[in-house]
Amino acid sequence: MPQRDVDVVVVGAGIAGLVAARDVMRGGFDVVVLEARERVGGRVLNAELPDGAPIEVGGAWVGPGQTEILDLIADLGLSLSPTHAEGRKVLDFNGRTLRYTGRIPRLNPVVLADIGYGSWRLGRLTRTLPPPGGMVDTRAAALDAQTFAAWLYRHLRTRGGREFLRFVTRAVFTTEPEDLSALWACSYLGANQGLGAFLTIEGGVLQNRIVGGSQQIALILAAQLGDRVRLNCPVTEVEWDDDSARIRLPESATLSARRAIIAVPPILSGRIRYAPPLPADRDQLIQRMPMGRVIKTNVIYDEPFWRRDGFSGQANSDRRTAATVLDNTPAAGAPGVLAVFTEGRRADLVSRLPQSDRRQQVLTDLAAYFGPAAKDPIAYIELDWAAEQYTRGCYGAFTTPSALTRFGPALRAPVGPLHWAGSETARRWTCSMNGAVESGHRAAREVTEALNAAQKPPTTQSA
Amino acid sequence: MPQRDVDVVVVGAGIAGLVAARDVMRGGFDVVVLEARERVGGRVLNAELPDGAPIEVGGAWVGPGQTEILDLIADLGLSLSPTHAEGRKVLDFNGRTLRYTGRIPRLNPVVLADIGYGSWRLGRLTRTLPPPGGMVDTRAAALDAQTFAAWLYRHLRTRGGREFLRFVTRAVFTTEPEDLSALWACSYLGANQGLGAFLTIEGGVLQNRIVGGSQQIALILAAQLGDRVRLNCPVTEVEWDDDSARIRLPESATLSARRAIIAVPPILSGRIRYAPPLPADRDQLIQRMPMGRVIKTNVIYDEPFWRRDGFSGQANSDRRTAATVLDNTPAAGAPGVLAVFTEGRRADLVSRLPQSDRRQQVLTDLAAYFGPAAKDPIAYIELDWAAEQYTRGCYGAFTTPSALTRFGPALRAPVGPLHWAGSETARRWTCSMNGAVESGHRAAREVTEALNAAQKPPTTQSA
Repeated sequence: MPQRDVDVVVVGAGIAGLVAARDVMRGGFDVVVLEARERVGGRVLNAELPDGAPIEVGGAWVGPGQTEILDLIADLGLSLSPTHAEGRKVLDFNGRTLRYTGRIPRLNPVVLADIGYGSWRLGRLTRTLPPPGGMVDTRAAALDAQTFAAWLYRHLRTRGGREFLRFVTRAVFTTEPEDLSALWACSYLGANQGLGAFLTIEGGVLQNRIVGGSQQIALILAAQLGDRVRLNCPVTEVEWDDDSARIRLPESATLSARRAIIAVPPILSGRIRYAPPLPADRDQLIQRMPMGRVIKTNVIYDEPFWRRDGFSGQANSDRRTAATVLDNTPAAGAPGVLAVFTEGRRADLVSRLPQSDRRQQVLTDLAAYFGPAAKDPIAYIELDWAAEQYTRGCYGAFTTPSALTRFGPALRAPVGPLHWAGSETARRWTCSMNGAVESGHRAAREVTEALNAAQKPPTTQSA
Repeated sequence: MPQRDVDVVVVGAGIAGLVAARDVMRGGFDVVVLEARERVGGRVLNAELPDGAPIEVGGAWVGPGQTEILDLIADLGLSLSPTHAEGRKVLDFNGRTLRYTGRIPRLNPVVLADIGYGSWRLGRLTRTLPPPGGMVDTRAAALDAQTFAAWLYRHLRTRGGREFLRFVTRAVFTTEPEDLSALWACSYLGANQGLGAFLTIEGGVLQNRIVGGSQQIALILAAQLGDRVRLNCPVTEVEWDDDSARIRLPESATLSARRAIIAVPPILSGRIRYAPPLPADRDQLIQRMPMGRVIKTNVIYDEPFWRRDGFSGQANSDRRTAATVLDNTPAAGAPGVLAVFTEGRRADLVSRLPQSDRRQQVLTDLAAYFGPAAKDPIAYIELDWAAEQYTRGCYGAFTTPSALTRFGPALRAPVGPLHWAGSETARRWTCSMNGAVESGHRAAREVTEALNAAQKPPTTQSA
């Protein structure tokens, strides 16, 4: 029998990989986590405010019902703070700027009724669908045969209603409704408690933040794993057979393990070279799972001046670069921070401009929402996640039409000793931090069950 | 100035890469071609018949108007033989098996009229579209916002007509009409002289074959390039800056060049690690260009028995594993060979069966078309191109909805010293051998113009 350095190797030190590694470690097995970057956290990342305090530039929010991440946060000794939501919201839609309180902006009543009916249809549908990668029945296949844009066009009757759901789609999926399968869209919404969870802060997926920034989760997990986590180790090749996986490390070393958990986004899992190669079904699936695209910008002010003027800091637009805006001020109350999201095609367009032009557009937009004080930030931190080599898009992947029907089961199905984690593989809260945690637990369970089922040999033995 | 080993490195020894390398060599520059496999040819490959004669298991046919490949074939001293097309054709459609001569099978006249009208609409549209990756105007963007299935559904009125064009789509694009953008489908058809070019052998893209098998093209080109072609050199990493590209070779050597031509399918070009990473636009595009899927099977008999019974060997089915069949008998007239194609979703399904079951299905289908003699082949050669690590699907890539609108120009736009070739990047005859040749010439032209424009230093110099 060939030498085995560890029981389990995990590729990727995002939340999914770290959770999986900790479970494996707690199960009594040796584990090593290989991370390409010089940091842990994946799509979860803290940056520094001018005063040195952390601010999230990646995934940040958690909501009620997200049991796995809430349990983890409590377990790690972290605490939550509510997202600021008091005050008027701004909706820049169809050429008009509305300021409103409550759940529903004062749109044309016919359009509102259309949106209400469309959302009801969508909710009824999404509640009964299998999770992404689940069994595709006739009804699911019919959804998968169309883009989400086609579904919206069919089920909404007014131009305003369709445009409204187009821009909500862009905010939720960070891509255009034409880009993704209606089945992915609906399964995803079902797995995330429906569209409503994205539209209101209280009770929704944006309800809470993590004090100290979400990357704390990854940093503490990594500290618990200690020197089991190796940074600056991009994995380019995995050799495998039925009962082992071997990974070439920098400096020509090789790490051998009995099982591997690949905890990177689907498209990146395909950029590793496997020997033997992955089965066609798995490869074809991940060829059809592109990442959404979002530029996240934190705009920092001395104080959250918009609160003083009765604004919540929440704004949405169907045409501006500052397309989605949230109050991202730290729990301490200062400095004032607005998190600005530029999603989908709008991100493509502004990414081609000089940074100064993009900044100018964002500040102009924020001034249009909250007044001229928005024009004088003290700091400005932007990140285009699609340009990040080891992420290549955010918030997450989606499937293109018919990919789930043709190849869905390959999303989670292990290949020999290779197991798949990452928020895209979650059955619930897909593509969220909670999804990452769920997927990490699930992959670790697969691996420990397989290792326990096999007679457990000593972790290092000679041929 | 850092050391440069060669002027130009080409990644991929398919027809595109080899043509590019030869042009570069003829332009007076040093060139090296790195090929991952132990052979040249990419999607063009000969296998051996029982008598030792070559038979094509990949791309094989050329048609009139394909100037670039026809010129190359003549230049290499190769000759053409006509595809056998005489005799009755078989159409297994909508539960009935028709045997017919001439262009048009005896379908229900209403369905025939619908197909005629739909094809006319399609032809009118495709003739006026830009090539894949060209300028997307309002009309092209509207096409790109829908799947080809949606276009077919809208423009055909009968169930039979829609189903007929569905199965024609599967044969042409080796994927389901739901999978691809209507813009890609229409641009592609426009670039390939319209749908008609795929439907009739004489005058179409299947009119001729290359005596000795299509891989001869690659083999002779490689012989002309001599030791400039290095096999068994998978490229996993390209470091680049404004005026050079460095590629790590096996055994820790590094090859340095002033320009690089990446001549592999789009999805595979994304599986190379670039330092610095590729721009987001290029990466997002190739995340949205999956490969079609086809299993090509050559079924070999002592003689082409179907000819004796008045069959052309051509058959098409909307439900059988032997979905597209052509007479692939060598020009010598024996042994008899049927080339069988199983495309798209049908390929997914049968790829999950044991090989013996697949073979059983194919032979049953061929017997249904041509009689019981089909059940006794003397040899059987099948290749699932989606399982090939260094191809990952055939005949070619396509784009998913809105990918060309958002990222189309990135298809051919060089990135620093990196240039893109491969049949998917061709402006005409996209995804054919002719497209490969065109793209190779174009990439070589880009590179030699850039090298000539710069002051040409000696090819090796020290810092």
